[in-house]
This record gives sequence, structure tokens and C-alpha cells, in this order.
Amino acid sequence: MSQSATVNRRYVLAQSPKGEPDASTFRLETVAVPTPGPGQMLLRTTWLSLDPYMRVRIYETDGYMASVKPGEVMVGGTVSEVVASNHPDYKVGELVHSYAGWQDYTLSDGSDVIIKLPANAKQPSMYLGSLGMPGFTAWYALNQIGHPKNGETFVVAAATGAVGQIIGQLAKLAGCHVVGIAGGADKCAYAVKELGFDACIDHRGAGLPERLKAACPKGIDIYMENVGGPVFDAVLPLMNLNSRMPLCGLVAHYSGAGMNGADRLPGFLTEALFKRMKLEGFIIFDQYPAHYANFLAAMTQPIESGAVKIREHVVGSLEEAPQGFTELLAGGNFGKVVVKVA
Amino acid sequence: MSQSATVNRRYVLAQSPKGEPDASTFRLETVAVPTPGPGQMLLRTTWLSLDPYMRVRIYETDGYMASVKPGEVMVGGTVSEVVASNHPDYKVGELVHSYAGWQDYTLSDGSDVIIKLPANAKQPSMYLGSLGMPGFTAWYALNQIGHPKNGETFVVAAATGAVGQIIGQLAKLAGCHVVGIAGGADKCAYAVKELGFDACIDHRGAGLPERLKAACPKGIDIYMENVGGPVFDAVLPLMNLNSRMPLCGLVAHYSGAGMNGADRLPGFLTEALFKRMKLEGFIIFDQYPAHYANFLAAMTQPIESGAVKIREHVVGSLEEAPQGFTELLAGGNFGKVVVKVA
Repeated sequence: MSQSATVNRRYVLAQSPKGEPDASTFRLETVAVPTPGPGQMLLRTTWLSLDPYMRVRIYETDGYMASVKPGEVMVGGTVSEVVASNHPDYKVGELVHSYAGWQDYTLSDGSDVIIKLPANAKQPSMYLGSLGMPGFTAWYALNQIGHPKNGETFVVAAATGAVGQIIGQLAKLAGCHVVGIAGGADKCAYAVKELGFDACIDHRGAGLPERLKAACPKGIDIYMENVGGPVFDAVLPLMNLNSRMPLCGLVAHYSGAGMNGADRLPGFLTEALFKRMKLEGFIIFDQYPAHYANFLAAMTQPIESGAVKIREHVVGSLEEAPQGFTELLAGGNFGKVVVKVA
Repeated sequence: MSQSATVNRRYVLAQSPKGEPDASTFRLETVAVPTPGPGQMLLRTTWLSLDPYMRVRIYETDGYMASVKPGEVMVGGTVSEVVASNHPDYKVGELVHSYAGWQDYTLSDGSDVIIKLPANAKQPSMYLGSLGMPGFTAWYALNQIGHPKNGETFVVAAATGAVGQIIGQLAKLAGCHVVGIAGGADKCAYAVKELGFDACIDHRGAGLPERLKAACPKGIDIYMENVGGPVFDAVLPLMNLNSRMPLCGLVAHYSGAGMNGADRLPGFLTEALFKRMKLEGFIIFDQYPAHYANFLAAMTQPIESGAVKIREHVVGSLEEAPQGFTELLAGGNFGKVVVKVA
């Protein structure tokens, strides 16, 4: 079933998963397309973003962002077309980036619109990736927390993912020795040959700590922490004096895996003290008011010109979104995951 | 045996302790008082500082600062009198703060002198505490990392210790709700009645997490981490969004205690992410060139006038230093520990 002018397909949360999300997590519903009231517009989703943070939003937890409740439409960033408008600032045919979620249509009064896309936007789906949340995450983490210096060593995991591919290239432009970590030889080859990383380590093989150490002969000055798990353990002993660790995601920990075994917290805190490390957690959604416009001003030209390369992993339809999401969490994607809804 | 003009008493490291330091850790030696050569001066120790960081220096470890090797004189900050001088910048009778270690006499070419005490210094031992390393640690952690705002909640453990007593009063001056944690009713009463803390929790009783939570009804914005262990566990769930955690010491972890049991690292990192926390390890010895003069300029008047109160725990002789050190590590001190050597 493809997009229709009269039916709104939407995925709601069926139940909060206990461990990994699976086929029982989401439920497809079809309802009528709503009609905009005064001051409202009707948005039709053309692209939907799939991102690791969504996993946290479907747990029964607090402290991060409001959880999606069972029966509610699943959250997600979108690029949408204005298809009807009673709003003075939006015309039919314009594209906006908002958070319409996993569905074809939504009403908006404009308050949820992150940005109206420029009329000459080269590739609208970029606003879900390199020019959207993941690219903004990369740019913010590197420049506002990492503060890279020429000659320092920078390490990022999920190196060909939405954030990793961008931040690695930016660190390279800042003069860093850039080492990626990724799952599989094809991703590693891509990181080195296409993205220009100095090295990329396959975390799937044996001896990750030794291979990472060999790739970082001068230790690690900045580690972009976005995966947690065994990669974190391999990185920690290599962190240099006065090193920095922006912390924006912990995919390997989200489901509660690895919670048993020896207590690594005292060792971590001791390393943080001895190495004079700075660890800073951030949620990029906090930073839009202060920094997003600056990010777009700095990055639109490098991204659109191809000076900073991007790779998308396109999921072909809205119905494939649940499967695409579980693949993303398992590292099955190769590039920024976007769903072609229309 | 008291200080002599001809004999240098010195404590050397006998052996690196595996767990807690004990009577076999240090060895008293007596040697002749050395004679200064050209450009040198002879320093006679009057006050010796005992501090938790010394514990790290006597382990066989790396990454923090150079370890004291067996047979070497134990390190330590001192206030010393110049008793003979071939150095143009130092006159007999002047007092200096340096790191002469656990001994009566040492030769110096001036390069190891942190500061020459002002001629009108009100209380020389202050330069080992409130105007020395611990006070500098407190001032730096609060202002350079903590960035307190009026109305925020500040928490520090070892509240009546060398660092805690100063940083708590500074946080109070910055308008914070200040909660201390200390061992024993007398220390807690002192923190509230004399130092002006809003509350002080005895960590020795049951229900530390609940009592701390009750004392911090608006959560915790700044936690000065200087003890580790169960206090850290009680603090973590109370940390607020955008909270800060300067990290300058981990006494409860130094000896390797608490390394077994459930792995608390994933939980910590998740909290750090969700709460947008900033954790920053620092070693105050790094900061002397850039910040110590500013600290003295800011703090000498408040300390000497009594606007910021101080409490010392005086160990009566050099021979009691080993016992004083083990008591300090066990929390047996009440105030900044200084040894009256002469």
C-alpha cells in the first residue's frame, strides 16, 4: 500500500519492549486524513528519519524525554510537504522539517516546525541527516565539547552511521588523526577510502583493544561516545591526559545488556581522575534554539557541495519502517537511515 | 625525639601497600643535616601537610603522578623556614611553601618553592590548607568546573575535611543550597552550625539515599566528587538536568574496594546522558601556573579575616605522621590535617 490522498497510515506504539523491539512493538493503523482548521496546515510526509534515540523514547523511563505511550503515534523527524494551508506563513508545495512521526499526514500550527526547507534545497532528506539532527549532533559535539586541536587523535564508533560519518570528516578537517570503529570490512573500507579516515577498526573481529591501540599510537584525545559496550572498554585505557568524551548515545546499553559482571564504575572514575578527562552528556534537542542556525550556516555549503560526503541508507516504504528500525539498532544499516514515505 | 639542628629525621616508603597503608608502609631514618652548596638554601620543615592524594602516590601505578619508590622520602607539602641560604632570593628566617616531604630538612635551589609566604602571614599552616592545595582545589572546582548559580543545590562529601569545609562555604557565598555529607554527628553539627551549611548528612547511619534526598528537595546541581563509594551511589539518582560533577578524589576507591558486584558503569553513563551531566576530572597540581595567584588574590582576605572559617586537625609531631595519615584515610580527622614538625 502506497501513500494515498485520503488514508493516513500511522504506526503507533503497541507496547513498550522489555528488551529489543520486535514485531509486537509497533502496530499499523489506518485512519482518515484530517482537515486543517483555522491557522493550521496539513503536512504530508515524504521522508521519515530512523534514529537510535527512538529506542529510548519507547521505554517506560523518565529523565530523557517524554516516553511514547502505547497507542500514541511513534515519534520521528520528517520532511513533509504542505498540501493544504490555512497558515499565513506556509504555502502549498513548500517543504518543512518537523517531527510528524511515523505516519503519512499530520496537522500543524507551525509550532512544531524545526525549519522550512530552502526552495533550492539540493536533497530534502539531508535535513534528516547531515543537515538535520545527526549532523547537528556531530558538529555540536566536536566543536562545543571536543574542541579538537591539530594533531590530536579522534575516535568515533558507528563510523559510517549518521553521526559518525559527519563527525569523522569534520575532525579530519580540524587536523585530527581520525580513527573509526565500524561493523564489517565494507564499512571500514568506506570510512577510509571514501570518508578519508586515517584508519577504521572492525569491532566484529577479535582483539579489538589491541587493534585500536595500534591505530592510535599517540593515544586518544577525543572519543565521541555514541555506542557504549565493548568499544567503550577498549577506548578507555587509551584516553590521554586532558582528553574529552562527548556523550550522546549508548546504543549497546539501551536495552540493559551488559549490566552484570565486574563493576567497572570505580575503574572508570579513577581513569577520569588520573587522565583529567572531561565527560559531557548532551541531548541535541536542547541545543536547537542556541546553535542550529549557526550549524546550518556553517555546514550547508560543505554538505551540498560534497566537500563533506554523506551516505544514506534508504528504506523503501513506511511499512518497512519497523524492520528498518530493528536493523538500525543491530547495526545493519550502512549510512543514515531514512524512510522514503512518498 | 624532637627536631634537632644536626639530625634529619625522614620517613621513606618501606614498601608499596597492597591495600590500606599500615605500620609496615613507612620507615623512619635519621641522617645528617645536609649543607647547602652554591645557589642552594637549607629548609627546615615547620609544618607538614597530610592529604588523601598521598595514597595514590605510594601505589605502583602510573597515569596520575610519579609514584614514590621504596627507599625514597615520602612526598608532602610543607611550610619551611630558610635556616641557611646561598640563594640571592631567599633570606634566613623567611618562610616558604614547598614540597619538602616527610622530613626535617631539605636542600632547595628555589625551583620547588610554590610560594614565599608573606612576611605578615597570619597563620603559616594555612598555606597547606585553606590557602594551599586543598583550598585551591575547592576554589578551582567550584568556579572553573561547577559554575554555581544562585538557588542551585550543591553537595560535597567529607564536608569538614580540608576541601569540603572550604568549598561548602564558597558555594554558600554563591547563593547555593549547600548539603554536606560527613562521618559522625559532631562533624555534621559543625558543618551546619559553624560553617553555615544548610544541612549535613551522616553517612554512617542507615538510609543515606533517603536522607540525602530529603535534604535536597530540588535535586543536586553540583556534586563535588572527592570520596567515591556509597556516597556516589546515593548522589547519582539525584543529579539534575545539566548538572556538574568536578572529580578530584576517590578515597573510597583508591584501595580497590568495591570493585566487585553489579556493573554500575552502564547505569552511570546512562544517567550522565539523560541528565546532560558534565563530569570533569582534574589534578590541582596542573593548575598552579595559570590559576594559583588568582586564587590567593581572591581568597587571602576572606580566609585571614575569618569570613571563611577553617578548622585544622593538628598532629603533634613528625613521628605521628604515619598514624595521622592512616587516620585521615579512615575519616578519623576533623578538619585539615597538618603535622606540627617543629
